[in-house]
Amino acid sequence: MEENKEHIIFEISDELINRVKHIVDTANDAEALELFKDLHYADIAEILDILNLDQATYIIKLLDSEKTSDILSELDEDVSSKILNNLSAKEIAEEVEELDTDDAVDLIEELPEERKETVIAQIEDETFAAEIKELMTYEDDTAGGLMAKELVKVYETWTVAGCLRKIRAQAKHVKRVHSIYVVTKDEKLIGRLSLKDLIIAKNESKISEIYIPKVDYVHVDDDDEEVAKVMAKYDLEAIPVVDHNKRLLGRITIDDIVDVIKEEAEKDYQLAAGITQDVDAEDSIWMLTKARLPWLFLGLVGGIGAALIMGDFEHMLQDHAVLFFFTPLIAAMAGNVGVQSSAIIVQGLANDDIKGSVNNRLIKEMLLALFNGVVLAVFLFLFVWIYKSEIYTALAISLALIVVIIVAGLIGTFVPLFLNKRGIDPAIATGPFITTSNDIFGILIYFWIAKLILGI
Amino acid sequence: MEENKEHIIFEISDELINRVKHIVDTANDAEALELFKDLHYADIAEILDILNLDQATYIIKLLDSEKTSDILSELDEDVSSKILNNLSAKEIAEEVEELDTDDAVDLIEELPEERKETVIAQIEDETFAAEIKELMTYEDDTAGGLMAKELVKVYETWTVAGCLRKIRAQAKHVKRVHSIYVVTKDEKLIGRLSLKDLIIAKNESKISEIYIPKVDYVHVDDDDEEVAKVMAKYDLEAIPVVDHNKRLLGRITIDDIVDVIKEEAEKDYQLAAGITQDVDAEDSIWMLTKARLPWLFLGLVGGIGAALIMGDFEHMLQDHAVLFFFTPLIAAMAGNVGVQSSAIIVQGLANDDIKGSVNNRLIKEMLLALFNGVVLAVFLFLFVWIYKSEIYTALAISLALIVVIIVAGLIGTFVPLFLNKRGIDPAIATGPFITTSNDIFGILIYFWIAKLILGI
Repeated sequence: MEENKEHIIFEISDELINRVKHIVDTANDAEALELFKDLHYADIAEILDILNLDQATYIIKLLDSEKTSDILSELDEDVSSKILNNLSAKEIAEEVEELDTDDAVDLIEELPEERKETVIAQIEDETFAAEIKELMTYEDDTAGGLMAKELVKVYETWTVAGCLRKIRAQAKHVKRVHSIYVVTKDEKLIGRLSLKDLIIAKNESKISEIYIPKVDYVHVDDDDEEVAKVMAKYDLEAIPVVDHNKRLLGRITIDDIVDVIKEEAEKDYQLAAGITQDVDAEDSIWMLTKARLPWLFLGLVGGIGAALIMGDFEHMLQDHAVLFFFTPLIAAMAGNVGVQSSAIIVQGLANDDIKGSVNNRLIKEMLLALFNGVVLAVFLFLFVWIYKSEIYTALAISLALIVVIIVAGLIGTFVPLFLNKRGIDPAIATGPFITTSNDIFGILIYFWIAKLILGI
Repeated sequence: MEENKEHIIFEISDELINRVKHIVDTANDAEALELFKDLHYADIAEILDILNLDQATYIIKLLDSEKTSDILSELDEDVSSKILNNLSAKEIAEEVEELDTDDAVDLIEELPEERKETVIAQIEDETFAAEIKELMTYEDDTAGGLMAKELVKVYETWTVAGCLRKIRAQAKHVKRVHSIYVVTKDEKLIGRLSLKDLIIAKNESKISEIYIPKVDYVHVDDDDEEVAKVMAKYDLEAIPVVDHNKRLLGRITIDDIVDVIKEEAEKDYQLAAGITQDVDAEDSIWMLTKARLPWLFLGLVGGIGAALIMGDFEHMLQDHAVLFFFTPLIAAMAGNVGVQSSAIIVQGLANDDIKGSVNNRLIKEMLLALFNGVVLAVFLFLFVWIYKSEIYTALAISLALIVVIIVAGLIGTFVPLFLNKRGIDPAIATGPFITTSNDIFGILIYFWIAKLILGI
């Protein structure tokens, strides 16, 4: 079975890498061309990722720009921008011309500000250059920032036969024809057609007779995550983008949306883990430190806060030392409950799944925390009672645990809802932020309740 | 601007819900049909989600099965399975017949075991029933479990003109034609064609002259996450599924893959937050407890472990009470560092981004932890020194912090790599599991080092 599978998951062997390095170092162009001929650009990008900059640049210069443009688009930005640095404006323009407008813009955006103009000036196709300039005016995280200008559109007045003829011409510039958009003579979007509809229709029919007037679309300045939600919800493979006069500007395809969804999920996941910036395992220690240290510092400050609180209750050490042994337990439970409840809210907000009022949500979380808290507290009570044979201490610790769990659950529920209302990404509330604040609140509440019960 | 946007994000108003409830309660069928006529099935599903079971069932029975089949597919499984319970086998069969085979199977799989056969027996189209039975034999999380039988295929011996004729017939059963698959007379997949290629080609050409022999495909028993990776990497919108003789069995489309990617990301995120099962904010308290309590219990056991360790060092209370004040800080830092490093590894593994050996990875994490640890320790040292004016205690606490951070980073890096090697989902290592074990190790190391430095 295994031998049938190579094609699917392309695995880079050390042997292959060594062969590539040898070919490059000996400048054996013929063998290089032969080797890369049948490889997919995504696989070549993986190989280039491992080579050093000179070797990667060599291969980009060697291969045909039809292939290298896709490779450059696929590479991590920190790698591709370095390679672009080694290319002339003319060479970059040639790469750019092979790409769809959306990918072309992404590549140009990697260049230093002063080179962008120079490269665009070198693009031969003036329409293409103008389209790129237009796309560069939209914000990165909007529909405009995602869309491409390549699309197939027909005017409502055309006939099916005329359409097929025109589409044959337009389709050459469009890799995949998802939908054919129907516009009025002043470019307003009024409907859509599939290639299938067109093939099935009679040649002499008018487009205005056969088009589907119901067409989903987004506005050029809609948020990219909103576009992702719409496309996922309505199972769309492409969506047209219009301006505020409903004039057709471009289209977004599902593959770009897959990237948005993945990036969004990764960002939330990293925030929950206390990692601020978009980093991966291969990044430098310095990059990773920048992403991790601020959150650790927050944890340190929280820990110092907890220590100061405990210092305030130092007089209880004499008779109730055992209280101090359970502070890590209290802090851990407060943290865990807070992370759980905030994660459920953050995920619910991301999926538009949060119904009902904030109050109902808080009441539900309180009941849930109460229920979980009582189960855990009974267990803890029995343990402390047997361990120390002090029934009042056991009672104080376990009652405090219940209250701490409830408060932690409420904070974990309230904070992301509050941040979301304020327009702040609630995902920042799922990681060290919530654990740290819950640690402090938890320990404070714990000692208060213990003091109350033990009457000190 | 806002008023242009209603169409995009369909918002359910209380007014709309009340209107629907009123229509249903007064059995005003005409108004119901009018109201739902122009709504998208995904939007109707959202409305049904809010209604009670009787109201939802009423609407499903009222509307045309062409629409309700999609609504049932869109609904959360716990809602749709209850509605299906209220329908007869014949009614369910009618819903199923409107769906593509993959969605049809998903709907049937929601039925209790004994009803499945009864419903399939009621399906009139025998080919369709046979296809469903075939699809039901594949595991849920494999390519076979994701694929649909609906596809457009042509034999290599056909001509373009003949093809277009046959495709017109086949295409009626296929919502979206992504690719046309080219097979030999014994059904072996040998290539593909796009509708575009076919439209551009001359009518008298043979398929064997114009097809593209390079075609990506997956095997029927490949893992669904693997399929998602392949489709995302190679930017595919559909991929054919073959058996081990390369016979074409079905095809998977990108919209199903979007769901796989989202589910995978949500699962990892929930595991990192200490939530085991697939739950959301709207689930019952009992469901949420089942998902959350086991992890909290783990945290409780960890906290008890930490308390027992501290009990062992009780003799240090007299002279070094301050050491005990910093145990929540030590536990929190160990937990945070462990979560950060494990999250980076888990994400790297998910993206096939982890290069180099385990040893190199551990060395890198050690350097990173050392660097972060020293920065934090200097800060902590100054604080404790100023706060307590005990330089040795300050030294002991801050040196211990460095070691704890390094060990926590190493555990956070090693555990997911180890689990992954053993074929266990490494994501379980990112949440309470890593924080709890790091809490215990952290506190143990902390007191050992303090004892060593303070010479007690």
